[in-house]
Amino acid sequence: MHAITIAEPGGPEALVWQEVPDPVAGEGEVLVEVVAGAVNRADLLQRQGFYDPPPGSSPYPGLECSGRIAEVGSGVSGWAVGDEVCALLAGGGYAEKVAVPAGQLLPVPEGVTLTRAAALPEVVCTVWSNVFMIAHLRPGETLLIHGGSSGIGTIAIQLAKAVGAKVAVTAGSKEKLDRCAELGADILINYREQDFVEEIKEATGGAGADVILDIMGAKYLDRNVRALAANGRLAIIGLQGGVKGELNLGALLAKRAAISATSLRSRPLEEKAAIVAAVREHVWPLVKAGHVRPVVDREIPMNDAAEAHRVVEESGHVGKVLLVVP
Amino acid sequence: MHAITIAEPGGPEALVWQEVPDPVAGEGEVLVEVVAGAVNRADLLQRQGFYDPPPGSSPYPGLECSGRIAEVGSGVSGWAVGDEVCALLAGGGYAEKVAVPAGQLLPVPEGVTLTRAAALPEVVCTVWSNVFMIAHLRPGETLLIHGGSSGIGTIAIQLAKAVGAKVAVTAGSKEKLDRCAELGADILINYREQDFVEEIKEATGGAGADVILDIMGAKYLDRNVRALAANGRLAIIGLQGGVKGELNLGALLAKRAAISATSLRSRPLEEKAAIVAAVREHVWPLVKAGHVRPVVDREIPMNDAAEAHRVVEESGHVGKVLLVVP
Repeated sequence: MHAITIAEPGGPEALVWQEVPDPVAGEGEVLVEVVAGAVNRADLLQRQGFYDPPPGSSPYPGLECSGRIAEVGSGVSGWAVGDEVCALLAGGGYAEKVAVPAGQLLPVPEGVTLTRAAALPEVVCTVWSNVFMIAHLRPGETLLIHGGSSGIGTIAIQLAKAVGAKVAVTAGSKEKLDRCAELGADILINYREQDFVEEIKEATGGAGADVILDIMGAKYLDRNVRALAANGRLAIIGLQGGVKGELNLGALLAKRAAISATSLRSRPLEEKAAIVAAVREHVWPLVKAGHVRPVVDREIPMNDAAEAHRVVEESGHVGKVLLVVP
Repeated sequence: MHAITIAEPGGPEALVWQEVPDPVAGEGEVLVEVVAGAVNRADLLQRQGFYDPPPGSSPYPGLECSGRIAEVGSGVSGWAVGDEVCALLAGGGYAEKVAVPAGQLLPVPEGVTLTRAAALPEVVCTVWSNVFMIAHLRPGETLLIHGGSSGIGTIAIQLAKAVGAKVAVTAGSKEKLDRCAELGADILINYREQDFVEEIKEATGGAGADVILDIMGAKYLDRNVRALAANGRLAIIGLQGGVKGELNLGALLAKRAAISATSLRSRPLEEKAAIVAAVREHVWPLVKAGHVRPVVDREIPMNDAAEAHRVVEESGHVGKVLLVVP
């Protein structure tokens, strides 16, 4: 098969489409013939040499894909050759074939094409596990999403609105904020021109956000704590603004607030399977009903993954950039 | 009635037992004739002028008491004059009478004397709400308790053991650690002589603590994060070691860990009532069965509250210091 390999850590040009050995479906796994993959920011870090795949997983980048089951390994039930699926991966999605633990498979939901289904697994599992399983966003509460027009952001807006929450987003341009509004966001904050702490306070009658989904880490830590409401929960899923920051525990305690930080890729198989099962139960019905749809910025041939990385690095996109197997 | 008043913020001598007007049971409240109160560290801060009572609550110190119901206000059902109770208070426990919202009352559990019941409400509600309702300690997990011989610590040890968890404690002397061991603690760490991060790692095969109950705040923040296991939860209930500290979000994220910080006193009435109801349902049966008992260091006449504060300030005690109405 062909896969995107990383010749030497570096810029987008490090991504090379070449012939590699086929993967094998081990016990409890299926082999998926990939139709499409999708770009995540973690892939950019892996390309640069900052984010090695977990032990035992594929050396190729790619944390999600869609395709058809080509082979079913021993010990797997409920799936058959030819099934159209999408999957959460620990790696290997930038390839013509990938071996997937059965617990990380999802059926392609009705109303979504096989190709576009590649846009769903990583972002839906990330949003559901953080905003709902950890931070327990409830109807009527306010969710603040940093980077509302990202792949994560576009799904988080739709999911939060579908469960009856109020949604605030930050983004860096009017065009991006307009897209967020189309998806249902109620409070639009341009982080280049506005102070999100002030804006969220003003929009909530001084209360603040009940849940914040953050990708900036240290750079936003103090401001995020200030933006939280009483009993607020800050869920950190990215550290684009640095790793170490000063935490005001006095402010946290006065608000009875909580901070969590997670990554999906490093979770053990059984935790990933539990998240995927919860997504199938709680989110797939919302997708089938049309309340939550994948937002795809563009489709790029997988052999030109370098171009896809350039697009994501420039942050001009809205939603997901797909990689379609040529 | 008499109450301990704070003439002028300062040392223990600021606490003066004097005649004051009787409190009145408002709507939804009962009037309790106090038999005993208990000292909490927050009372010391209040005496020093660093911790004002929440708006609308009694100006006198005292966050818990036991006694008999002397009067039932309008809108209260399920309680009668003469009932023996203990109660979680927003203040006013250092007095002969106190008005209490009905949702903060608990019956005196079988097997506990009316006086000693004063040792239970604040610590049991604090431990249950943090370790179980927020951090969800599960059977088989390891709980690390900082200050294992404190009022909070002695209850946390017993509760965690009663639900089948493994318990590690820190304390500052062999004598205190021995008392923690008698209460069931499995792992004993002398913080004056040992590094708790190393000790907890070694005692858990390198894994770390699943839940940490912390009273030190900033001073322990970085070490607590290092001492956490994967999926670990740090529950901060005191800031004796400072308010602002550097948080390593990279370490938190790699462990998929969470930090919460709470205080009980500032919670709205309905949250306190929910915690008290959960304590009555989940903890009171354990007290009745003898698995959890109040640990009382000594009883001091309430009019000598100054002496009780000196004892707690010197940290020579184990468990709770009670104030008995003379």
